[in-house]
Amino acid sequence: MRPSVPLALIAALLLPAPALADALVENVDGMTLTAKGELQRFNGIVIDENGKVVKLLKRGDKRPERPDWKEDLKGRTVIPGMVDAHGHVMNLGFRALALDLSATRSLAEAQDAIRRYAAENSTRRWLTGGGWNQEVWSLGRFPTAAELDAATGEVPTWLVRADGHAGWANSAAMKAAGITAATKSPAGGRIEMIAGKPGGVFVDAAMALIEKALPQPTPRDRNSAFIKAQDILLSMGVTASADMGTSLDDWMTFRRMGDLGILRMRIMSYSDGVETALRVGGSGPTPWLYDDKLRMGGIKLYTDGALGSRGAWLKAAYADAPGNSGLPFLTDAQLLNMIVRGAMDEFQFAIHAIGDRANQQVLDAIDEVSDTYKGDRRWRIEHAQIVDPADLPRFGKHGIIASMQPVHQTSDRTMAEARLGPQRLAGAYAWKSMLANGATLVFGSDYPVESPNPFEGWAAGFTRQDGQGQPFGGWRPEEAVSREQAWRAFTIDAAYAGFGEKKFGHLAPGMRADFIVVDRDPMLASPSELRGTVVLETWVGGQRVFRRSAKGGAGR
Amino acid sequence: MRPSVPLALIAALLLPAPALADALVENVDGMTLTAKGELQRFNGIVIDENGKVVKLLKRGDKRPERPDWKEDLKGRTVIPGMVDAHGHVMNLGFRALALDLSATRSLAEAQDAIRRYAAENSTRRWLTGGGWNQEVWSLGRFPTAAELDAATGEVPTWLVRADGHAGWANSAAMKAAGITAATKSPAGGRIEMIAGKPGGVFVDAAMALIEKALPQPTPRDRNSAFIKAQDILLSMGVTASADMGTSLDDWMTFRRMGDLGILRMRIMSYSDGVETALRVGGSGPTPWLYDDKLRMGGIKLYTDGALGSRGAWLKAAYADAPGNSGLPFLTDAQLLNMIVRGAMDEFQFAIHAIGDRANQQVLDAIDEVSDTYKGDRRWRIEHAQIVDPADLPRFGKHGIIASMQPVHQTSDRTMAEARLGPQRLAGAYAWKSMLANGATLVFGSDYPVESPNPFEGWAAGFTRQDGQGQPFGGWRPEEAVSREQAWRAFTIDAAYAGFGEKKFGHLAPGMRADFIVVDRDPMLASPSELRGTVVLETWVGGQRVFRRSAKGGAGR
Repeated sequence: MRPSVPLALIAALLLPAPALADALVENVDGMTLTAKGELQRFNGIVIDENGKVVKLLKRGDKRPERPDWKEDLKGRTVIPGMVDAHGHVMNLGFRALALDLSATRSLAEAQDAIRRYAAENSTRRWLTGGGWNQEVWSLGRFPTAAELDAATGEVPTWLVRADGHAGWANSAAMKAAGITAATKSPAGGRIEMIAGKPGGVFVDAAMALIEKALPQPTPRDRNSAFIKAQDILLSMGVTASADMGTSLDDWMTFRRMGDLGILRMRIMSYSDGVETALRVGGSGPTPWLYDDKLRMGGIKLYTDGALGSRGAWLKAAYADAPGNSGLPFLTDAQLLNMIVRGAMDEFQFAIHAIGDRANQQVLDAIDEVSDTYKGDRRWRIEHAQIVDPADLPRFGKHGIIASMQPVHQTSDRTMAEARLGPQRLAGAYAWKSMLANGATLVFGSDYPVESPNPFEGWAAGFTRQDGQGQPFGGWRPEEAVSREQAWRAFTIDAAYAGFGEKKFGHLAPGMRADFIVVDRDPMLASPSELRGTVVLETWVGGQRVFRRSAKGGAGR
Repeated sequence: MRPSVPLALIAALLLPAPALADALVENVDGMTLTAKGELQRFNGIVIDENGKVVKLLKRGDKRPERPDWKEDLKGRTVIPGMVDAHGHVMNLGFRALALDLSATRSLAEAQDAIRRYAAENSTRRWLTGGGWNQEVWSLGRFPTAAELDAATGEVPTWLVRADGHAGWANSAAMKAAGITAATKSPAGGRIEMIAGKPGGVFVDAAMALIEKALPQPTPRDRNSAFIKAQDILLSMGVTASADMGTSLDDWMTFRRMGDLGILRMRIMSYSDGVETALRVGGSGPTPWLYDDKLRMGGIKLYTDGALGSRGAWLKAAYADAPGNSGLPFLTDAQLLNMIVRGAMDEFQFAIHAIGDRANQQVLDAIDEVSDTYKGDRRWRIEHAQIVDPADLPRFGKHGIIASMQPVHQTSDRTMAEARLGPQRLAGAYAWKSMLANGATLVFGSDYPVESPNPFEGWAAGFTRQDGQGQPFGGWRPEEAVSREQAWRAFTIDAAYAGFGEKKFGHLAPGMRADFIVVDRDPMLASPSELRGTVVLETWVGGQRVFRRSAKGGAGR
């Protein structure tokens, strides 16, 4: 998509007040954790010209006599910017820019929404999106290509059903993909036919027939997606995030944004494999770039799939699929070779492991290499969702970081009970046990799989309840952590997991002045109140990068 | 190759004196061109903390009272850093790091040199290089794989003959490439056989049998090659250079060097095609990065080959190859499509054209698009070697830049006479005619095809003579330009060609303080003296980045 505003102009719009020198943010109800995790209160912040905290002021402390700049926050609550330990920046943006039909209640409503989206995105080569459900529309059948053509005209369009198991193409998309009446349905898939011709809907494996024709995003598309993602994150109070699986083109996008002054958030980048890390970093992690806003410090690997699709690799068969225990993505030797190659050059590893067998594989590998690759390695296991209780103590060795997502627990609990049966829940989403076993526990959202709103995760972290307060008392509440512990997992410890703890994650002299202004006190709010926290302003490096307008939108 | 010194340490070694504020470089015999090309003399330079010239001082001008830093250059000659309008940075480094056997006079001498090189490069996976000639060695036959094994042992080794038409492999290289007694010589090539087995030498098309097994350079290899190239260029007084054909991995290397503070020279980067430019720049040229040290501003294209190999595309057949007039690399439509795609996003174009037909094709294309893509485009034709005199006036239209290489003329003249015959020399290497026809003439070396030493090019520019003063009076001396004109083609105009003329290329208030200290006065030196100019110090952005040691090597 061609952004409607030239990038240089966007950069100019984002430019904040001129460089600060001895600025004073005054009259705040401020709270932060210290580096040691203790609660500290303050009511003013002195910031230097580099956007670092000079001093946190208490009532009665002497103020700078003539600050170059002063902001009165009128007693609002101020806390450090939230840090998401596991997200997917570009995917968040691409998904946000796609058409979302999930709120439509009829085919006609959907067609209106599609028509509007097409008009707003007239320079896109393809229109994409999803969320439709013909059941909700009470249509009694699948929609047709002709019905889509009526809304899109000649622009190839591909819209995925809410469940992800079917897609709706228009005539232009079928033409671009070379679909004709003679095209055969592939094994595991079905082309819906109408009067002997492809009708527009492609089920399961047949979806690939269209998807192979989808154009790769252009660099302009990537720019737009990044800007969208950053807007979303900053508006939710996330000032720093790990990016889990940065491709080379993702990296080029982050750099363009940094070069143009559009990069406002902090990104702890983990490459999508060893090769990208070497192509980017050469002989090791990059330095922190753009005033500590970007660093590729590690490598993301996958050792298994997900629990819902029974792709997670378990030690014993799924309770609801006898004989199936999932599959490993890598052999032990492959995993070791990748770790060794990256560890030689001091790259950190962040390894996706959902099932208990996958977690065991990663723990084995870390055991194997830790004697050779010593020093401050901060091995990360991403998700660490289902762990054999016998393996839990192994997380305390080698300084392993358990990078977990509280909201996944609330989304998954019923499904997890079905997949695992009652016996295996002891080591599932076992946050408190991780801590008890000496792991460093850090929290993230896994956006866009879940919402990036960190307050939802924070509340789930100490309640084990979902947004509706379900289940009453929390699911396996013995694995809840304290409110303060969940906070540190979303701030100082998430920063530590990305080697950023001396730069951001809490407020103290010398740290970057990353903070958010919120509409309630997170220490006093009930869990449901905490979930509903509204971020009023977001500051990164002493500069205001988001301000909610009176109507609730973004302003500056 | 693993550099013997870690990169971080190299960066530290390169670090100059701390940031300057109001520094004074004093007691110089200074001369520069002004932006308008007039000679200006000075004897001191005031430099600010950003490495920019504050003022050029004349004798008697007031000096800063308490400069933070002062350097007395003891009356030495100081001129602006030289700017090479056409080079290949990474190739220069790779070639310099490879083994050079061109000075060896016998097989035994060559084996000694190979043995030394192998010992110094013990971490390389392959040893590569060339320059050998069995005739010079008076060997009466090709060397053998066994003779190479004796010097290299088990490390795969591949050494190209001086003329580039044969290569010498050792047993490990043949094994890695899967060469056996059963391997057949390909069409256009020959595997030298000894007693029914491959003997080690591969001629012409057979060279590819080994070369396909050569490993791609690693990011570490690329780092080393860059550092080597930069060392060479700075030691020769080149402070800025166009890089003609930057690949994505080249770009990643430049960025790594910039991120680590190792990038000391200025690079005007032209991508190796449209796709790389879009992947890097996204929606247009990058900004100037690293304090004006790096920018990808344009795209390099090729429309034909070279004259020596009769690949240049001529309007009429080669004089020494009837019926053959070379070949175009691109159709008119392909060339136009590429130009349109890049020009839409404001990328500059630098298009290689050697033969008169190729030059016509590019001129036609520029004519075609210039009405649509207006503004400050600075269309560049690289080499512009053989131009039909009827086409010469077309260079004056649309502000076309003729990017030419004086030393090519001196290297090529006998060959060019043979290829073209006497009739077509009027528009060959026609520097003065380019100027007379309104082109902007800029000079470069095309390193590593020729030496990057700019003083050789400068001297050739106004003499049309080679390093031996041949031919007497110069080859077609009517096409020589003046000493001053050749200088500006290597400074202010070469900077202009890369959109850098307001940043470097001459010394004036607000310009980057890029200058060199040389051992003679280039305005007074004879041509042969000018060629022999020794660069004593090189300064980029007000920081000394090269100093020749007493022994003639590099120090700091």
